[in-house]
Amino acid sequence: MTDISPLQKARLQFQPLLPLVLRSLRSLTPEDFSPKQELSKELEALFPYTGSQAKLVFSEGAETSFSAMRVGVVLSGGQAAGGHNVIAGLYDALKALHPESKLFGFLKGPSGIVDHDVLEITEDYLAAYRNQGGFDIIGSGRTKIESEEQFQKSLNTVKSLDLNGLLVIGGDDSNTNAALLGEYFQAHGAKTVVVGAPKTIDGDLRNEDIEMSFGCDTACKVYSEMISNIARDALSAKKYYYFLKLMGRSASHIALECALQTHANLTFIGEEVAAQKRSLRDICGEICDMVLRRSEEGKHYGVILVPEGLIEFIPECRKLIDELNDLLAPSHSHQAHMESIHSKEEKIDYVVKFLSNESADCFSTLPTDIQFQLLLDRDPHGNVQVSNIETERLLMQMASIELEKRKKAGNYKGKFSAQPNFFGYEGRSGMPSNFDAQYCYGLGHVAALLIAHKRNAYMACIKNLTEKVENWQPMGIPICGMMHLEKRHGKVKPVIEKALVNLEGAAFQHFASQRELWKYEDQYRHPGPIQFFGDREITDQVMLTMTLEHENAGVSLTSAGT
Amino acid sequence: MTDISPLQKARLQFQPLLPLVLRSLRSLTPEDFSPKQELSKELEALFPYTGSQAKLVFSEGAETSFSAMRVGVVLSGGQAAGGHNVIAGLYDALKALHPESKLFGFLKGPSGIVDHDVLEITEDYLAAYRNQGGFDIIGSGRTKIESEEQFQKSLNTVKSLDLNGLLVIGGDDSNTNAALLGEYFQAHGAKTVVVGAPKTIDGDLRNEDIEMSFGCDTACKVYSEMISNIARDALSAKKYYYFLKLMGRSASHIALECALQTHANLTFIGEEVAAQKRSLRDICGEICDMVLRRSEEGKHYGVILVPEGLIEFIPECRKLIDELNDLLAPSHSHQAHMESIHSKEEKIDYVVKFLSNESADCFSTLPTDIQFQLLLDRDPHGNVQVSNIETERLLMQMASIELEKRKKAGNYKGKFSAQPNFFGYEGRSGMPSNFDAQYCYGLGHVAALLIAHKRNAYMACIKNLTEKVENWQPMGIPICGMMHLEKRHGKVKPVIEKALVNLEGAAFQHFASQRELWKYEDQYRHPGPIQFFGDREITDQVMLTMTLEHENAGVSLTSAGT
Repeated sequence: MTDISPLQKARLQFQPLLPLVLRSLRSLTPEDFSPKQELSKELEALFPYTGSQAKLVFSEGAETSFSAMRVGVVLSGGQAAGGHNVIAGLYDALKALHPESKLFGFLKGPSGIVDHDVLEITEDYLAAYRNQGGFDIIGSGRTKIESEEQFQKSLNTVKSLDLNGLLVIGGDDSNTNAALLGEYFQAHGAKTVVVGAPKTIDGDLRNEDIEMSFGCDTACKVYSEMISNIARDALSAKKYYYFLKLMGRSASHIALECALQTHANLTFIGEEVAAQKRSLRDICGEICDMVLRRSEEGKHYGVILVPEGLIEFIPECRKLIDELNDLLAPSHSHQAHMESIHSKEEKIDYVVKFLSNESADCFSTLPTDIQFQLLLDRDPHGNVQVSNIETERLLMQMASIELEKRKKAGNYKGKFSAQPNFFGYEGRSGMPSNFDAQYCYGLGHVAALLIAHKRNAYMACIKNLTEKVENWQPMGIPICGMMHLEKRHGKVKPVIEKALVNLEGAAFQHFASQRELWKYEDQYRHPGPIQFFGDREITDQVMLTMTLEHENAGVSLTSAGT
Repeated sequence: MTDISPLQKARLQFQPLLPLVLRSLRSLTPEDFSPKQELSKELEALFPYTGSQAKLVFSEGAETSFSAMRVGVVLSGGQAAGGHNVIAGLYDALKALHPESKLFGFLKGPSGIVDHDVLEITEDYLAAYRNQGGFDIIGSGRTKIESEEQFQKSLNTVKSLDLNGLLVIGGDDSNTNAALLGEYFQAHGAKTVVVGAPKTIDGDLRNEDIEMSFGCDTACKVYSEMISNIARDALSAKKYYYFLKLMGRSASHIALECALQTHANLTFIGEEVAAQKRSLRDICGEICDMVLRRSEEGKHYGVILVPEGLIEFIPECRKLIDELNDLLAPSHSHQAHMESIHSKEEKIDYVVKFLSNESADCFSTLPTDIQFQLLLDRDPHGNVQVSNIETERLLMQMASIELEKRKKAGNYKGKFSAQPNFFGYEGRSGMPSNFDAQYCYGLGHVAALLIAHKRNAYMACIKNLTEKVENWQPMGIPICGMMHLEKRHGKVKPVIEKALVNLEGAAFQHFASQRELWKYEDQYRHPGPIQFFGDREITDQVMLTMTLEHENAGVSLTSAGT
């Protein structure tokens, strides 16, 4: 056994609390909690077997006996803290339902299903991963099961393993894929039901039933500690503006939570930027206005939070990126011409000619290295790799240039030194908070119940997450009910829409009511490192965005009725 | 009162443990623990009053009564976790010695002494900072008190405040400055004694008496958590090499501790690079050799730790930087010529002509943006800003180019994707670990005792730090005894030599014995976030480098004798 740390050891031994309902698994049966969900005809046509189903709760009755089950599990997409605990929860629940049940893990993501790349997860093997971060128990991957051949091979795999069920742990696309797989298996007479678990640090897999995707809590806690440490540093040395980019893809949920946790001086919320149709110049202007006013109070430091997806929410940038994606698509003749040009500057000159006036203007405001990045750093489909754009450096450079101008114009006398940083990978593979450890352990149990009761194309769900763990409410939610149809790459596909920050919601509204104060008064808040022992007020803190939304909504599951 | 987090609140209420010896302050008297230290004649001449003094321990006797004291405190240089607790410890100890004692904080570092910029630290004011990170209670700064005028003004300040003592919390240079101030005050008949406390996250203010500077423990714990999260991510997604630069200036103490904590695949130790006279190409070669061998095992990911000071330890880079510093000094004629050139490329061409062959060769191996950085990003003295060089990106780019070459030569078939990151400011202003919180609180007490007993130019010190807090051993160490004379900018000055990583020491030797295993076997270790509650095995963990050095040294204070 490798040398492990004392905390690692203690966490391996931690027994996550379960919601009271889940403590007597063999007495639970699923019960309809809603009428069957009505779907559009197009969706019904895509999902004749699994499309229209009811939401489920679990009610306690007489203990029944279950047969031994054989179940597969796969981790799909980016890491999120708690994935190991979903698997541990699934394992423990399967064993509690029948001690001869077996669990199989597909390796390196969905490709493991297609390629029959699998290992049996035993208690000994699992023991090293309980309550630990990362997805290293079986790895993860981004393969999408799309072609008929992939579906066929997946069917062969689950048949040859004789699986009763398959749990797909993933985000919106992976859960859509889970439903498609479940539908396919059922249509082809396989007994394997497919269920999903809502994973993503981005917090954008959310709806009236999914209160939060797992991993978001830990990521926000890791980032918030770092941000607040940096804020302490800014306030102590009084020397730097810190431009901190936060992972989280499109939606700005993580940035909003971190703003509420730390009271950083300025946080951009992409959804608001889009709603107000702000330009890159507007955003740079807001930064400079703040720097200027703070400098008049003798403050030449501060903390600025930049969500990873900001750039795509700026309409002119979105337009520019779309135009570049079209212009430089591998099929397009420009691509060949671009490759024949050697100098980067000439490449720029060549491309600019084909942009709309608005996009050419936006492109010209960008620093040269970002221009290069937009032209040269492209994914295999020829798309701009938005997540690679160092927005924190872009804004820092633009602000620096603008402030120099203001200085020359006599409007600004301060000094502006800045440091960029990116908080990303360290947050998505952190040691899971008690919230994520317990939430995920519970989700694994719900998944086991759904499989034991042969419920196909359901997502494991737990509600009432702002309450004590004991009162959490497990449910099963039909995945198709979350879908709509969308045109992607020319084809109409079922998708689960990503949840964006609700600008009318209580969390954003609270942020909006406080931000002028935080901008100038340095009321930094310090959540500190994640704690695992002691007072539950400290170890089991719920995300502030969730608490605010919940308090404001004022509804609980029990009052919703059927 | 600002909105504070539950953990912040709990930490404000935390009562740091004190070494048993320090629990009866009024009964303690300092006692010589060594003969007076012998100094060189030159040092004796610089410090006629405070030069030759004995090391002190504190022995318990009858309780004596003290008069009320007036004491000043200043934070000097970069932040380190625990600074607030040194001040809290000093405050509580002064009040315990006499309830009418008063504490004054000089604002924004040593310039606050020169400019008489001061506030009284009261219990109410202090209450918001106990056990919290950062230096924001009074701020910090890097002003060096050097000129006669500055000394004179400092003397005026301590006289007008009628100070019995002044505590300087800082690193090697600040403690040297403390001794010079103490000497000056005594020579000019002032009653103010000056004492120091060993601060720096870099861990390079260490010697036979100073087992560890404060702040290093917390910084290493913050960085190690981030590194180990990233390692989990690498192992889960199996996609990226992470190049992580760690703050810590010249010495590689932080990198060594983090390597021992996390078992990263490859860690460079600057001191070893210098001892082996390795070139930048050698270092890049070692990275590529590892990437190549790991790729043969199907591993296209890993974690590489780069100490901030690495570049200066590479002899050819050191030479290049020295030559550039000379060539581009503000006084030098080249500077004016450089400014007349507009194109960056022409600037490079101009400078390269004046470099030695070896330096020109080294310069030519660097990516263009690093070349620009070396030429253009300079401090007011014209020196290359070594700490601004993004060594993590430099090595990443060089490795990428070298691997492409090997691929073309048919020696390498893998894929190499990399992500750079810098862990810095978030570690030096983190919430102090229990170790730093208690160590610093104790140091504050020792400082109060030294002042109460009118011991001038001493550093507060606590030994036996690898034992339980109760058994820690407070001491007073004459600052001059740590000094030697060194030529700096053409003048001979007293300095405290920075402690580098000892390549013969047990910590480095342990690392060296394990690193081949860590390079290929992915035995990542996960220390997790700093914990404050529960089992002391977890909350009070001592740095592994200290534990290893201590176990190997096998000596304890008590056996050293007088």
